[in-house]
Amino acid sequence: MTPNANTLTVSVDAMGGDIGPAAIVPGLDISRQRHPELAYILVGDEAAITPVLKAHPRVEEAARIIHTDVSVAMDAKPSQALRQGRRTSSMWKAIEAVKTGDAGICVSAGNTGALMAMSKFCLKTLLGVDRPGIAAIWPTTRGESIVLDVGATVGADTQMLIDFALLGSAMARTLFGIERPTVGLLNVGVEEVKGLEPIREAGQHLREAGYDGLDYVGFVEGNDIGSGRVDVVVTEGFSGNIALKTAEGTARQVGGYLRDAMRASLQTKLGALLAKPGFDALRRKMDPSRVNGGVFLGLNGTVVKSHGGADALGIAAAVDLARLMVHNRLSEAIADQLRQAHQLSDDGASAEQPAATQAASS
Amino acid sequence: MTPNANTLTVSVDAMGGDIGPAAIVPGLDISRQRHPELAYILVGDEAAITPVLKAHPRVEEAARIIHTDVSVAMDAKPSQALRQGRRTSSMWKAIEAVKTGDAGICVSAGNTGALMAMSKFCLKTLLGVDRPGIAAIWPTTRGESIVLDVGATVGADTQMLIDFALLGSAMARTLFGIERPTVGLLNVGVEEVKGLEPIREAGQHLREAGYDGLDYVGFVEGNDIGSGRVDVVVTEGFSGNIALKTAEGTARQVGGYLRDAMRASLQTKLGALLAKPGFDALRRKMDPSRVNGGVFLGLNGTVVKSHGGADALGIAAAVDLARLMVHNRLSEAIADQLRQAHQLSDDGASAEQPAATQAASS
Repeated sequence: MTPNANTLTVSVDAMGGDIGPAAIVPGLDISRQRHPELAYILVGDEAAITPVLKAHPRVEEAARIIHTDVSVAMDAKPSQALRQGRRTSSMWKAIEAVKTGDAGICVSAGNTGALMAMSKFCLKTLLGVDRPGIAAIWPTTRGESIVLDVGATVGADTQMLIDFALLGSAMARTLFGIERPTVGLLNVGVEEVKGLEPIREAGQHLREAGYDGLDYVGFVEGNDIGSGRVDVVVTEGFSGNIALKTAEGTARQVGGYLRDAMRASLQTKLGALLAKPGFDALRRKMDPSRVNGGVFLGLNGTVVKSHGGADALGIAAAVDLARLMVHNRLSEAIADQLRQAHQLSDDGASAEQPAATQAASS
Repeated sequence: MTPNANTLTVSVDAMGGDIGPAAIVPGLDISRQRHPELAYILVGDEAAITPVLKAHPRVEEAARIIHTDVSVAMDAKPSQALRQGRRTSSMWKAIEAVKTGDAGICVSAGNTGALMAMSKFCLKTLLGVDRPGIAAIWPTTRGESIVLDVGATVGADTQMLIDFALLGSAMARTLFGIERPTVGLLNVGVEEVKGLEPIREAGQHLREAGYDGLDYVGFVEGNDIGSGRVDVVVTEGFSGNIALKTAEGTARQVGGYLRDAMRASLQTKLGALLAKPGFDALRRKMDPSRVNGGVFLGLNGTVVKSHGGADALGIAAAVDLARLMVHNRLSEAIADQLRQAHQLSDDGASAEQPAATQAASS
């Protein structure tokens, strides 16, 4: 392992995911072919990792192993994972490497709930952020959008939604290079329903606060996500997760309909054969391993969650995403965004308070 | 208009929807071609309805008009619609015809929130049902499923989710002819999150209660809806609405990708031309006007909400759905289902109470 000034070290939970090292190490290999500046910390069972590493010299020369016998089961409850795996598990140690500065970012294909619980516990949330969010990159008709939260929280109050808007727009700026990403709050068509107050209040705040770093456009509905109407879609984690998985399911369903339709007769089969380059392009476009990775935002350090079932290509996509985020200085963008937001709200508080009251309360 | 024993009268809010009578009357014509036993009560502005009716003698001979000048704006708030349109609007009078028994079912393409508010106010909820739900018919890989609630409520407590399971399974039995429809509760993968208690409690109740009329299979996720894993997917209205619209958006998005892919080169264009019968079949399968109609469940009378932008074919689909529900005795199925549920919970309550307490409390 020969680190240099440009080296970016990624700490990887080598035991995470449905497949483990056999998918992860080949995935790291693909990533390092694309980005030779990558180095890896592989955390997990040395006996399981070493043989796979031997078969991938490009990874081996850039990796060091941190051995641990403890790994977090894919179906462990977050509290159980914390109890049994804190400070000892491959997941924890991979996150910890970000805290100590040994790694610039952490990638895990492990249990989402456990990864979030451990990340919160180990890295702590950023100043002023109550709850971290998981941001997904969503392929749209126009390109890509960011949707958050897709599963870290259930239910969100006004402040959490505002935080998600700030965090998500910082990520959009980092990832897409857009100076003022457009932001929409996910809502249902019917306005006058109990339970939507946090969404309305967050909308009002975002409209009035006038943050430099984002362009709040109003409410969006489920069908607006895929059309790419906004760069950042903000929602609480339950509906965000349902939306994400429903979209995945629908894409698969339509793909199935298409296959059936093309197999219906000799003529359609011939047509499909002739149109194969088009279908191949469509398949590439819809390949779930092309876009893989939920980004944990709002923590002191960034963690990327890969799909549990990801193959080597999927792992590579998650690592590439992590790399891009460090490369484009996501943390700095988030810090700027939050600083400006606090500045604004401090100014707002001062402006509302007469000087005498301020003196009295200080 | 010559009613006979088999006549089924549908009351229609002729002013509802983005298009109004010009889409609605032709839609009723299509429905009556398919089902000559249909008769119509058309509520709305006589001057707007009559000319269209003249052009559709098949509807005219089976329709009577109830004139009113008042109609509910598509963007009116529910409370505003109630205040301004109660007892006077085309929407109210169409619902009222179900209450008086003049019609067997009501169809409107109007403002969803207003239609639900007026339906609740006019028809009242069924005994023991706290909040009605809107059920959508969802095309799946295996056929069709029912998803509710898709927008009547935001947030739902344990009892509401149980009610939705009872109502939805009665509808599945009516519509699909399945004796014990399978039912799943929509949830996210992470189990241990605050806010999911109502879902877990509803799940536990459904598992333990052992209702004859449904087969509770457990939690399902967003991707399970389109795969048709269960006949009935139960959720609260916010995430249900988000899921429905996200699926619509995703289907449109994939359709767009497909079109682009087929236009990429001369070869793919030729292939697509040859495969045209397959693409036509796919288009029919994904045609949103083929399945149209949200069914309001849990009221003393059934109301079907058509998509606001529905064309004549869409309106016909909503009317056909309404007809099928009356034809297959949805109301009776729901009454049976609820009666059994109350019977069970009464038995449960009695079993838990010693005889002395029962006597004392009676």
